[in-house]
Amino acid sequence: MRVPKTLDMSCDMGESFGPYTLGEDTRIMPFITSASIACGFHGGDPLVMRHTVQKAKEHGVSIGAHPGYPDLMGFGRRMLHTLPGEIEAYVLYQMGALNAFARTAGVSLNYVKPHGALYNHVAQNEQAARELIHAIQSQDAPLLLYMLSGSLCSGMARAAGIEVIDEAFPDRGYLKDGSLAPRSVQGAVIHQVPEVCSRAVQLATEGTIPALDGSNVPVKAGTLCVHGDTPGAWIMAREMRKALQAKGIRIQAPSPGPQPGDQT
Amino acid sequence: MRVPKTLDMSCDMGESFGPYTLGEDTRIMPFITSASIACGFHGGDPLVMRHTVQKAKEHGVSIGAHPGYPDLMGFGRRMLHTLPGEIEAYVLYQMGALNAFARTAGVSLNYVKPHGALYNHVAQNEQAARELIHAIQSQDAPLLLYMLSGSLCSGMARAAGIEVIDEAFPDRGYLKDGSLAPRSVQGAVIHQVPEVCSRAVQLATEGTIPALDGSNVPVKAGTLCVHGDTPGAWIMAREMRKALQAKGIRIQAPSPGPQPGDQT
Amino acid sequence: MRVPKTLDMSCDMGESFGPYTLGEDTRIMPFITSASIACGFHGGDPLVMRHTVQKAKEHGVSIGAHPGYPDLMGFGRRMLHTLPGEIEAYVLYQMGALNAFARTAGVSLNYVKPHGALYNHVAQNEQAARELIHAIQSQDAPLLLYMLSGSLCSGMARAAGIEVIDEAFPDRGYLKDGSLAPRSVQGAVIHQVPEVCSRAVQLATEGTIPALDGSNVPVKAGTLCVHGDTPGAWIMAREMRKALQAKGIRIQAPSPGPQPGDQT
Amino acid sequence: MRVPKTLDMSCDMGESFGPYTLGEDTRIMPFITSASIACGFHGGDPLVMRHTVQKAKEHGVSIGAHPGYPDLMGFGRRMLHTLPGEIEAYVLYQMGALNAFARTAGVSLNYVKPHGALYNHVAQNEQAARELIHAIQSQDAPLLLYMLSGSLCSGMARAAGIEVIDEAFPDRGYLKDGSLAPRSVQGAVIHQVPEVCSRAVQLATEGTIPALDGSNVPVKAGTLCVHGDTPGAWIMAREMRKALQAKGIRIQAPSPGPQPGDQT
Repeated sequence: MRVPKTLDMSCDMGESFGPYTLGEDTRIMPFITSASIACGFHGGDPLVMRHTVQKAKEHGVSIGAHPGYPDLMGFGRRMLHTLPGEIEAYVLYQMGALNAFARTAGVSLNYVKPHGALYNHVAQNEQAARELIHAIQSQDAPLLLYMLSGSLCSGMARAAGIEVIDEAFPDRGYLKDGSLAPRSVQGAVIHQVPEVCSRAVQLATEGTIPALDGSNVPVKAGTLCVHGDTPGAWIMAREMRKALQAKGIRIQAPSPGPQPGDQT
Repeated sequence: MRVPKTLDMSCDMGESFGPYTLGEDTRIMPFITSASIACGFHGGDPLVMRHTVQKAKEHGVSIGAHPGYPDLMGFGRRMLHTLPGEIEAYVLYQMGALNAFARTAGVSLNYVKPHGALYNHVAQNEQAARELIHAIQSQDAPLLLYMLSGSLCSGMARAAGIEVIDEAFPDRGYLKDGSLAPRSVQGAVIHQVPEVCSRAVQLATEGTIPALDGSNVPVKAGTLCVHGDTPGAWIMAREMRKALQAKGIRIQAPSPGPQPGDQT
Repeated sequence: MRVPKTLDMSCDMGESFGPYTLGEDTRIMPFITSASIACGFHGGDPLVMRHTVQKAKEHGVSIGAHPGYPDLMGFGRRMLHTLPGEIEAYVLYQMGALNAFARTAGVSLNYVKPHGALYNHVAQNEQAARELIHAIQSQDAPLLLYMLSGSLCSGMARAAGIEVIDEAFPDRGYLKDGSLAPRSVQGAVIHQVPEVCSRAVQLATEGTIPALDGSNVPVKAGTLCVHGDTPGAWIMAREMRKALQAKGIRIQAPSPGPQPGDQT
Repeated sequence: MRVPKTLDMSCDMGESFGPYTLGEDTRIMPFITSASIACGFHGGDPLVMRHTVQKAKEHGVSIGAHPGYPDLMGFGRRMLHTLPGEIEAYVLYQMGALNAFARTAGVSLNYVKPHGALYNHVAQNEQAARELIHAIQSQDAPLLLYMLSGSLCSGMARAAGIEVIDEAFPDRGYLKDGSLAPRSVQGAVIHQVPEVCSRAVQLATEGTIPALDGSNVPVKAGTLCVHGDTPGAWIMAREMRKALQAKGIRIQAPSPGPQPGDQT
């Protein structure tokens, strides 16, 4: 048994747009420590962004930019073939926009986590990962990168001196190589609260997760992603937090800059 | 005859979008001192913004955010009825987005100038002006406001401690009360280069401009706006610059912060 | 007591967009006779439109185009200042798009009802009303116009030979001149199901509605608009239908073309 | 030497949007026989569509719907991964919208030609081609399909009973298998007017085109596509028309429905 450690719980937030409400942001906010806030391309609009930053601040929740492809109709879940430099420009634009709301609220942007198809693309594509890394490095203050545990992008970002928080998904099925099972596979998404909580605890305490084939595969987790767009998502968040705390794990957002011992 | 002073020449830039090119940015950039850069709502996109910031930097041209209403089809020229706080949120979002590109290029955002219908609305509407002022004041670094000379917004912003640069339009007709003639009125837009240059010189040296009724009306000018969306606009910019310099006027962008004597 | 007549019950439908769901379309569809389907400008997208047309067909519900301003963020509720001919072009575009789905499903477009700020604008503005009328008249098949009872547009459209269905709102407060109470006024929206049902019955049987000052004002009603964007809207629709049928009123969509006696 | 025949010259038109002008539509219209009109997704807006339909009518130019992916920023040139049925819905929506303007102008929609990435995708993807075919077949009146000569989609559409017009590109380089050379290859785009005219004549009279390797490859051509988005495109169109007519070829748009001998 390892010594208890701290762990982050994060959730995609602020994805409502104009007349449209998405997610249970208000109910989930009390249980998470980091909010990945949409920046107006795949979801979110200026009023939603300002409101979400304000709510995160009120709950002491750390703020991350959650940039996506400019495709509201497809919710940023469709790959867009971009010109060289275009991903960097997309990320800069959206980080900057969110940053303005963070400053106005008197808080700092803590991290960046790409959304949807952009997340998947940078995770495994070298050119895209490089553009994301450039965007992060061009900012004045250091920013964390939340990225798929074990991905190409994670390694590249760390090599470039960016502090990477490994993201794991307790409610998603994993293959035996440690990658996420495609959504088309049976067992790709797990809905039972107790099972998801048990997987979260195993990720936190053992550094492993049960794969679809029954084996336990090692998966590093600096943050556990809670999905917020399913009804009852807030209950999942609440129960997961309880289960982790019951094991002596402190739920806490990571900080950019020198943080000895936080991410082991 | 007054002592020569410095004067700014500014132009709306970066209003191209995706496959669409608008304006003669490249040709105009050498002759102006301030670029009001569109931020993706009424025009501009992330690649265009990055490119325009880079070009402004190369020419030593100061950079301003040029936020507009989210209405690409109407080019931000249509008034949009907004919710309380929405104008502030629109301006913050766009300032922040542009700021990210400025930082990446190693330059600072110098000012804000609203675009089109938003410019006209904040110029004369108290609630809208207040939201714009809040947006500017919430930023870390001081920003100048480029605003219609003599407008309600100018006065409010100055009273709030913002340094305002009075904007005048040498190629636009003025009424005898010092306001702009509506575009529907004959003489509302002046196309002859020598006449526009002569008006620019009079604005700079006399602080007046000939009104449509023939009288000379006082109009303060800290910046002269050059229109960039007409063919040959760059020639107008070049000739105006020459004419002003010939009168001993130094063409130079204003700087935010304590600048004794710059704006008299 | 008048003889029972037929009455239409209509609802704005198909306003979801991409990942965003709005309204309780599926639950409301069984209780209404006409679906005013969003056409992609203020809400709706191609997949949503096709699905909504299909569902309307399955329930034998008549289909209307529900065009709005191109302002998804503002849900078409913000007035947009348009160029001459632009409203006509907006309406044509959206009617045509919906028509393609109707044809594919083997049903006909029955009517047009403008949305939100466009509805309010054409209701009272002569130029806008004329453009809407032109758009309707340019179609091959006759289309009904659903329009605010007693409005300028209703009169103009009838004078132009268009069959107009007077729209009344049982859940909205009315002023003593027969116009809708602004939403800012207390009593502007009525939420109690029994009260709304009673008002619907009075509209149908007496041709009057209680105004905010207590008087009964005459309001013609060819269709009763059911709001679909509030939780429990489907219950309101069900109960209203029941209440009307209990009075012997036949709930039925009007048909374009010669329909003797349907709209008295 | 074959007997002279008729041939269509077509061009993508109406791709301007709001404040943005693209292409030399007015200058090209006199020289072509078919206008592929953008429908508001990758380019075009309601006012532009109406204007372009009107201009086509005035010049006796046949009208085709030119639907694309909903990606204005990328001009429809980026592949979008779609849900099953989504391509069909996109095409229906856009065809319908354009159809409304055609009817209002008293002309008929003659054909459909997908744009950019959608064109390339349906050309070679069976599921996408099937959705396009369904969209075309669901219309009341028969519509021609303009499609890449020799493509999978052409064959499928013909097998489904749709009359397909083979599209060839005199200003594009071809590989020896009759496919278009990728744009990255040297010689992929030919700019010299005489050479393009000569290739157009060869396509029309010999049914072949010189490939990059020097061989003449067979390419069927029912329509020659003129590119309209390069400066001087109208000169290319004019000269190509002259060159073809000088060979006794009649420049004429095909018609849907039984047309014995037109497309051999």
